[in-house]
Amino acid sequence: MNMDDFFDRLLTVRFTDDRTGVDIIDQTLIPVEMKRIVLKTKEEVWEAIKKLRVRGAPAIGVAAACGLAAIARRIETADYDEFYKEFKKIKDYLASSRPTAVNLFWALNRMDDVAVKNKGKCVEEIKNILLDEAELIRTEDIAISRNIGEIGFGLIKELKKEGSEVGILTHCNAGTLATAKYGTATAPMYIALEHGFKGDDMHVYCDETRPLLQGARLTSFELHNAGIKTTLQCDNMASILMKSGKIDIIFVGCDRVAANGDAANKIGTSGVAILAKHYGIPFYVCAPSSTIDMNTLTGKDIPIEQRDGEEITEMWYKARMAPVGVDVYNPAFDVTDNELITGIITEKGLCKAPYDKAFKELGIGGGLC
Amino acid sequence: MNMDDFFDRLLTVRFTDDRTGVDIIDQTLIPVEMKRIVLKTKEEVWEAIKKLRVRGAPAIGVAAACGLAAIARRIETADYDEFYKEFKKIKDYLASSRPTAVNLFWALNRMDDVAVKNKGKCVEEIKNILLDEAELIRTEDIAISRNIGEIGFGLIKELKKEGSEVGILTHCNAGTLATAKYGTATAPMYIALEHGFKGDDMHVYCDETRPLLQGARLTSFELHNAGIKTTLQCDNMASILMKSGKIDIIFVGCDRVAANGDAANKIGTSGVAILAKHYGIPFYVCAPSSTIDMNTLTGKDIPIEQRDGEEITEMWYKARMAPVGVDVYNPAFDVTDNELITGIITEKGLCKAPYDKAFKELGIGGGLC
Repeated sequence: MNMDDFFDRLLTVRFTDDRTGVDIIDQTLIPVEMKRIVLKTKEEVWEAIKKLRVRGAPAIGVAAACGLAAIARRIETADYDEFYKEFKKIKDYLASSRPTAVNLFWALNRMDDVAVKNKGKCVEEIKNILLDEAELIRTEDIAISRNIGEIGFGLIKELKKEGSEVGILTHCNAGTLATAKYGTATAPMYIALEHGFKGDDMHVYCDETRPLLQGARLTSFELHNAGIKTTLQCDNMASILMKSGKIDIIFVGCDRVAANGDAANKIGTSGVAILAKHYGIPFYVCAPSSTIDMNTLTGKDIPIEQRDGEEITEMWYKARMAPVGVDVYNPAFDVTDNELITGIITEKGLCKAPYDKAFKELGIGGGLC
Repeated sequence: MNMDDFFDRLLTVRFTDDRTGVDIIDQTLIPVEMKRIVLKTKEEVWEAIKKLRVRGAPAIGVAAACGLAAIARRIETADYDEFYKEFKKIKDYLASSRPTAVNLFWALNRMDDVAVKNKGKCVEEIKNILLDEAELIRTEDIAISRNIGEIGFGLIKELKKEGSEVGILTHCNAGTLATAKYGTATAPMYIALEHGFKGDDMHVYCDETRPLLQGARLTSFELHNAGIKTTLQCDNMASILMKSGKIDIIFVGCDRVAANGDAANKIGTSGVAILAKHYGIPFYVCAPSSTIDMNTLTGKDIPIEQRDGEEITEMWYKARMAPVGVDVYNPAFDVTDNELITGIITEKGLCKAPYDKAFKELGIGGGLC
């Protein structure tokens, strides 16, 4: 796998060559189809963000900034006030696409600041400065992911033993598809490949991440495409996966981190962390420093979005939910250690530990079959 | 809700009135449709077990025993050896329907023992004894569930405070649909209703239980139908649900319990137990004593079935996956407490606890927006 080719193919969001539009992968079609679309109007950018064609906090920010710059370019006036009034309208409209996406507001506000700061310049010049600022947001995002990846790669390297793979678990998609490049939680794996690791030096286990299945549809797709040994499992399989000794380290992304380190991320992350602690597996949160909110003291102060129940009661469209050829881990049962069980209720009575003694006391002596 | 009506409607398996066939609910249609079918031939019984029209270890045992007795009734001979040869053929055929289902073999072997033990009697008499034995297996299963339910109800009662509901979490379906009546993990709730508890004295949270969604399709269906306050959530939501303080007690079923109390059950159960321990919530396994296998010393000796990956990569048929009107808990994110996080990797460096100090040292001082 040539990494340049891979990142070229999976480039989440970029300007078109003439910088008149935003060129994105339509992520709603993955893994069934890999299709790029070009967004030229404010309605197209709005719809793409709204409908999750582009998703992942950093990627949304980049798409909104590039979209705003490309559309502002077509405002036909030489008068600053007229320009800014129109610019602000587009900005506010785009900001309404996903009202809870913090990076969206952050990126749009940064563009707004640039438009205001350069008020003295002529409108054509401002248009170019805005295009450059959007591009800068994109390249900064790549640099951030790269730094996170280098640090995470250091942790992977320490775990690597000759002739064996490093087992990594991740949850949801904090991948290259969620950022401008590398992702956050996936950056350590991609940077490892760039540093000469082979695809089977690592083995990444992806939680499918119900209800919207970003782990199955997106993370297993991108890692598998990068040639990294990838296995997909249901969220509830993480426990015996960790118990089996296959997981050496866990990387997850985050949406917001409180000052004390409490980290909000895709539903299910806290469960993964509790399991990791139970099994003694290191659990790392990959966080661009922009997501660390020192004004939020603890996790209790982070509001949690409750989403539509139909995401759970109606299934995703009837189609393949993971790339063809991806490995799947699908055990039907798991074993709960006795120390985790408060009591076992049989029809003969309630048993408490030590169980073998309790079973015998109730005259439960049989084996099966 | 009249409980007699409820159990009548949800009677998983029974003889037809004339005891010439087995009358079951086709569980593959739930929750979209509630339809009973009658199985008269060995092929029909085999197919119903194979295709999960009847499922749940105790219910499979009862269905197989009733099926064997009803079919054996039509063996046309007065000669014992000839009868037994034919009987054995049917038994072996039915045993091949689900080769890993321990209760299936147990029930069929018990019927076989009866056929052998009564060799001296005339064939017509043996046929009646077999019918009665099958019915006995069914009524014994009901008694077992009832006892488990009484013990579990005692635990619920202790938690009940005036004016507030007892929060209960369960995983998969160890419900009335998995047994002859009451279920195992659900028995405490149904017995509570029989003892005068109201549907909203309890609030049962059902893990949907990927990949086959027995929690969504079956457990939330039966509890909701019984008038019990029921909420459905994805498996990965159990962590913040427990953290929210809504869960007072957890009941799960089991497929096999080792002598030391390690309990094999539907995939994901061990994760629920670890979360419960972390949050200090009592976690009970509801186990008919026939599932306690003293010949298996620890959970390590219990083989775990690996199932077809397509259960994960291809979604369930495009249809409603939970009963209309059931409450759904669908938070999009959760918060992972800092004490569970080994480190937070930002692009500026790796942070370890105490995090606020670490963030400040890296010059991460911002808030969001």
